[in-house]
Amino acid sequence: MSEALIYLDPESRLSLQHQIRQKLVEGIMAGTFPAGSRLPASRKLAEQLGVARNTVVLAYEQLIDEGLLESRERSGIYVSSGVFEGRIGFHGPSAAQAELDTRWKERIRTEAGKRPRFQFPDDWQRHPYPFIDGHFDTSLYPTAQWREASRMALGARIVNEGTLTEGDADDPELIEQIRTKMLPRRGIHARADEILITVGAQNALYLLTQLLVAKDLAVVMEEPGNPKMRQLLALRQAQVIAQPVDENGMVISSRIDRAQVVYVTPSHQVPTAVTMATQRRHALLNKAHQLDQLVIEDDFEHESNFLGQPHPALRSMDSDNRVIYVSALPKVLAPGLRIGFIVAAPELIREARQLRQMVIGRPSLLNQRTAALFLSLGHYDAFMSKLHQETSRRWLALRDALNHYRPHFVTVPNQGGSVFWVLCPENIAVETLAREAARRGILIEPDTHYYAVPSASRNCFRMGVTSIPAERIREGVKQLRELMWELASGESELLDESDSSLLRAADLARVMPGSNWIYQTVYGDPATFELGADGSMRGRAGHANEDCDEGRWWIEGNTWCRQWKHWAYGEEGRFFITLQGQQLKIYNTDGRLVDSAIIHPQCD
Amino acid sequence: MSEALIYLDPESRLSLQHQIRQKLVEGIMAGTFPAGSRLPASRKLAEQLGVARNTVVLAYEQLIDEGLLESRERSGIYVSSGVFEGRIGFHGPSAAQAELDTRWKERIRTEAGKRPRFQFPDDWQRHPYPFIDGHFDTSLYPTAQWREASRMALGARIVNEGTLTEGDADDPELIEQIRTKMLPRRGIHARADEILITVGAQNALYLLTQLLVAKDLAVVMEEPGNPKMRQLLALRQAQVIAQPVDENGMVISSRIDRAQVVYVTPSHQVPTAVTMATQRRHALLNKAHQLDQLVIEDDFEHESNFLGQPHPALRSMDSDNRVIYVSALPKVLAPGLRIGFIVAAPELIREARQLRQMVIGRPSLLNQRTAALFLSLGHYDAFMSKLHQETSRRWLALRDALNHYRPHFVTVPNQGGSVFWVLCPENIAVETLAREAARRGILIEPDTHYYAVPSASRNCFRMGVTSIPAERIREGVKQLRELMWELASGESELLDESDSSLLRAADLARVMPGSNWIYQTVYGDPATFELGADGSMRGRAGHANEDCDEGRWWIEGNTWCRQWKHWAYGEEGRFFITLQGQQLKIYNTDGRLVDSAIIHPQCD
Repeated sequence: MSEALIYLDPESRLSLQHQIRQKLVEGIMAGTFPAGSRLPASRKLAEQLGVARNTVVLAYEQLIDEGLLESRERSGIYVSSGVFEGRIGFHGPSAAQAELDTRWKERIRTEAGKRPRFQFPDDWQRHPYPFIDGHFDTSLYPTAQWREASRMALGARIVNEGTLTEGDADDPELIEQIRTKMLPRRGIHARADEILITVGAQNALYLLTQLLVAKDLAVVMEEPGNPKMRQLLALRQAQVIAQPVDENGMVISSRIDRAQVVYVTPSHQVPTAVTMATQRRHALLNKAHQLDQLVIEDDFEHESNFLGQPHPALRSMDSDNRVIYVSALPKVLAPGLRIGFIVAAPELIREARQLRQMVIGRPSLLNQRTAALFLSLGHYDAFMSKLHQETSRRWLALRDALNHYRPHFVTVPNQGGSVFWVLCPENIAVETLAREAARRGILIEPDTHYYAVPSASRNCFRMGVTSIPAERIREGVKQLRELMWELASGESELLDESDSSLLRAADLARVMPGSNWIYQTVYGDPATFELGADGSMRGRAGHANEDCDEGRWWIEGNTWCRQWKHWAYGEEGRFFITLQGQQLKIYNTDGRLVDSAIIHPQCD
Repeated sequence: MSEALIYLDPESRLSLQHQIRQKLVEGIMAGTFPAGSRLPASRKLAEQLGVARNTVVLAYEQLIDEGLLESRERSGIYVSSGVFEGRIGFHGPSAAQAELDTRWKERIRTEAGKRPRFQFPDDWQRHPYPFIDGHFDTSLYPTAQWREASRMALGARIVNEGTLTEGDADDPELIEQIRTKMLPRRGIHARADEILITVGAQNALYLLTQLLVAKDLAVVMEEPGNPKMRQLLALRQAQVIAQPVDENGMVISSRIDRAQVVYVTPSHQVPTAVTMATQRRHALLNKAHQLDQLVIEDDFEHESNFLGQPHPALRSMDSDNRVIYVSALPKVLAPGLRIGFIVAAPELIREARQLRQMVIGRPSLLNQRTAALFLSLGHYDAFMSKLHQETSRRWLALRDALNHYRPHFVTVPNQGGSVFWVLCPENIAVETLAREAARRGILIEPDTHYYAVPSASRNCFRMGVTSIPAERIREGVKQLRELMWELASGESELLDESDSSLLRAADLARVMPGSNWIYQTVYGDPATFELGADGSMRGRAGHANEDCDEGRWWIEGNTWCRQWKHWAYGEEGRFFITLQGQQLKIYNTDGRLVDSAIIHPQCD
């Protein structure tokens, strides 16, 4: 504590010795002088404070008597190592503090949004099956490349360049890299004066809502939609029009006509990951043009589209500069970096820059320059391609697993992103499922906080793949299905072995050969199985049968067995089967319903 | 541009070829496809866009005809290297843009403060005499140490620690370092839940004004005072009480009684660098306690106090948790880093954290961890001591130079900080001086933007030392004095050689021996010179004669000459002198008034 200041109040009614004691105790209790740390010699402290040495000696002695300090021979005075032992509730709020609380309530003039927020546990990495979105497992970090860029940014030459001034300009190198490397991937042409750097996309949305939204101004949001934007609009006391989302993205209807600002996440809708269809995009832009609406395009996770070509950004289709584009450097580039940006009309960028100056000054130029170097060294393209490959692998693994463990998982079809939006079984409340799953190390995100009111929940949940290795995805989904069974016990459909519709060995041998099964995949595609009379089996899935497989089937006792070459992980399966009319129900050997299909008997 | 997206609109009235042309031109004009860059082969682009190859070929050919593209044999199609030659005003606003401007005006609901802001030129480093504050010359950066910390922060082990989550907690390591290394230097004990990290001190003040200030709420500010805070209060439409500052800091009077929040910069007042006296601090805290006012303490440049011990922070004297302490990591640690913090009651920190989540998400954890490592590696103490030493050297050099080139410089006494607040001669407008000085490579900051209204300017300016090497300080001050002479020409006092009061050789020989000269130093201390009859000379300055020197004097023709051992840089000086009553006026050999004193004739 040699550098610590003790302030003695000449006007205090307390003696100097008492004041010194008091300050030392304060420092020990607050942890400024940690247990076991050495205090300055009495002579030195006395000198520093301008008091007699004896005053300090007496203060020290009293604290030694009380056990707060201890004197170690030929070494000095130390804070006792056991100073906090036996003290309980030291940090707990006292009665005085509770009173203060109400006083602070009166002093606070702006209520930050009090909506319940969902947050994954901080120790999510200790959960074996973290199906969470927005976090990344560290295997994806381009640590070495980032370190190189960081080292260069700290290099004396760059620091000398004189860009590090008090002004409000962003690093021109970063603007140039975003302009020529990132935005063209989204079909966007932008001049330097149309781009502003922010502290992550959150800061971009904050600046925009502060600038463009006022009390009672009508603003469109998707429903379900981004809870962070909802909070920002609440802060501005906007009038929010919650517009439904379907499998083509946000519905464009006359409900949104009276809005002045439209907030939309067309690339991968937050939270459903649905991509907005081209017709919808045109309809939205036409309306905006006719009604002079501004459109805030939050280009969330534009980097990942695993089926088909990515759509260009809305802004690339905007001929009269009314789309305001918000995006960010991929979080996984450098965790905790927080660089976002706005692309918009220069008039708006100018205003946003002025507001930014007041709100944060300017986003760290050190980080800006590091990001610029990372991009300009060519790491970005290589990294994005690696990231795309890996995320795609995981996304397909989750899709396969959800499909394999049907019918408990039904998803809204999407073309990528890094999440699936999954319908929870009706007989289980999604919040119960999420809570119980977390106890078993499976993290999923219930949908409740994505709606204007939590009661609008449609009992869905999100599963993301950025944080879970591909290898663990199947097992996580399997365990989640087992949990669903458990939670629904009593209500769940179990095979009744005396069920007259149960197909026994002889029934199977009669019904199955030459039959066709028809069902839908978890992602809504039609699929058929053709069971040959010779025990061969063919499967086709997709609207154009783009996914095919072959396998074999056989009968063992009263069970029907099958093994595909690739589908169902190429594993053998044994099932009990019931038939009512044309409806097949498929049970595992524990008697759990695992699938269903429509059967067409042999055609010939 | 291989990764660039071109979006073709199937519903457009334009042909595909025309659309491709249009998009290419847009891209070239916006610089997305820079001059000299290669375009994809027509076959490839056609494939990507799903159009016939000939459509692309025709679009390319037309652009080649127009000179925008050029075909290089056996190599491909390139954007012409001379594409922008002869185009003027490409970036200039068109009539359409001017119209847009008024539309944007209507759309912007929050006016960011439009007060004129002062800003040093971005190329300040090219000025030989940058007496500017808040910038740092790069010689002070602890680049190697920072790089070490940065490398460690990027290390896989730390990234793995799982602190990099989506939550709103700050890096616990940084909180701990601030708590135990930085705050004790200011006499402050704080628990972890009393500290919040912000994006620089600016962001801290923004969050606090958003939380604690509402429309028409009375807030005290120093006058002159921090223009950034004034802007923030204007944004909240607060009612500002502009409270005068004297050499003891802000005046505490009944004028501030009706305020609910008091903003003050006690360590080194912004802009005058005056330190608030202890009695004033007590008066402020007593009043705040009686009237239940909150005090925001902006602990600006607490690190530098060159005369005497630093004062502990106001917050260290605050017994009922109403002082809200704002500070930042020294900018010079890592330029562009931007880490500030608030220390306050946990209730307020909680609210500020929630608001921060909406405004920026969270300050970069990468930077937080790097700063924490820098502090914990022990670099901070070593660096601060080096910084203190160097700033102190410069501060004293500026003080000496201002004193040497009196009487054109009169400063408000201060105990450190890194600036001087200097009175501009009455016959020169400070803004003229600053403008003309900048033309000669001397940067000084006029006082106008520090007042509630610019017309309140007291014709002062600030000179800072963080960006100018000690070696250049004297020459900069000298040239500034020469500029003052020039600007005041016609009005300035020039020696009239026929002046009857001019002391000629014989007069000097009669008057000088054994006389005492009395005057004041630039920083307000009394000083005396005793001229011995034998040509020796003794000087004493300071209230307790703490600064003494010896020298010699003599007469050459009609001039009086002197040389001190240390004072006046130990250089010989030749002067013409006039005497009216007891008033000596001292002119250089060009006839310029350079000093004045009161003379007491020899006592014996």
